[in-house]
Amino acid sequence: MARIEFWYEFASNYSWLAAVRIEDLARDAGHEVVWRPFLLGPIFRTQGWTSSPFNLFPAKGRHMRRDMERITQARGLPLVWPAVFPANSLVAARLALVGEKHGFVAPFSRAVFAAEFQEGRDIADRALLAEILTALGIDAEAMLAEAGSPEIKAALVARTEEATARGIFGAPSLFTPDGELFWGDDRLEQAIAWMADHPA
Amino acid sequence: MARIEFWYEFASNYSWLAAVRIEDLARDAGHEVVWRPFLLGPIFRTQGWTSSPFNLFPAKGRHMRRDMERITQARGLPLVWPAVFPANSLVAARLALVGEKHGFVAPFSRAVFAAEFQEGRDIADRALLAEILTALGIDAEAMLAEAGSPEIKAALVARTEEATARGIFGAPSLFTPDGELFWGDDRLEQAIAWMADHPA
Repeated sequence: MARIEFWYEFASNYSWLAAVRIEDLARDAGHEVVWRPFLLGPIFRTQGWTSSPFNLFPAKGRHMRRDMERITQARGLPLVWPAVFPANSLVAARLALVGEKHGFVAPFSRAVFAAEFQEGRDIADRALLAEILTALGIDAEAMLAEAGSPEIKAALVARTEEATARGIFGAPSLFTPDGELFWGDDRLEQAIAWMADHPA
Repeated sequence: MARIEFWYEFASNYSWLAAVRIEDLARDAGHEVVWRPFLLGPIFRTQGWTSSPFNLFPAKGRHMRRDMERITQARGLPLVWPAVFPANSLVAARLALVGEKHGFVAPFSRAVFAAEFQEGRDIADRALLAEILTALGIDAEAMLAEAGSPEIKAALVARTEEATARGIFGAPSLFTPDGELFWGDDRLEQAIAWMADHPA
């Protein structure tokens, strides 16, 4: 069983599209998904972008919104656009790193994405994040406390530095075991096919 | 028979990928392709970009180069990266507009793209453009003269203004008869499928 690294940002709508389907696609191909939450904001800022390119470049943003409507319709996914976009994903990302330690990163991440893009809720809201944790049977208060620890804060900074060092510039990004970088939900099938042609 | 508009920029490598296959895909679906050359440079400049985003954002550029290698390998296409990237596509685009008048826009455009990305040549070179026209059995000298006429210069400016007015921000871009905009070679299949589901 080979591992595909799935690098995602909670504020990223295309990351949501990939999060919904990557486990099924990988499992059907006999692979395992390694969930790797990171922050795209610091990377965008090094490019001189103070917000999402979808906000900075309105025509690009308009196409993206329509692209999302078409894709979710074709995939039978509900889409409720969040009032705040891009969301402040800092606490959610720290919680996802806590989830890596405690084994709940994948279901937590899927639930965060669903709240954001299927219900239109603001994932910066700690009460929402607590609600998601509780619904997963996880001690929300303890996990939120751990998410604020110096260890987790440093881990998220290190994660995002690793993303930059490995050439990530957007989300979602995928790494195959031989180090190939694939960017975008629309490259997911290519990454899986690449793994079949290039066994680790 | 419905018409799909194919908006492309000669300096754009993803436009090349689409130019290679759009006629076959459209014909198989019973549609006709309308070739619409335009210039992306003026649109990028309104976004504050003085060059291709692949040059301005090196990590994005590195991924794109690898993405192109993987895609061309999978499609069995030769790829020789041009020494000058992005190319100055002004004269080629004006010649393509001349080609719209005289009925050679599609074969001329495919030949320009092939010289650029399959042979790595600089399409800013008027001698190369003349060679391409001559190989197509077209009077190169007359067409180059017409490409420099005020009428054609104005037509290219108007074309690029139309692109902006219709929401184009990148290339290739596709318009279906009901006005849907699809961006990217990787949305070509979606655009064709859209036309099947939404007959004009």
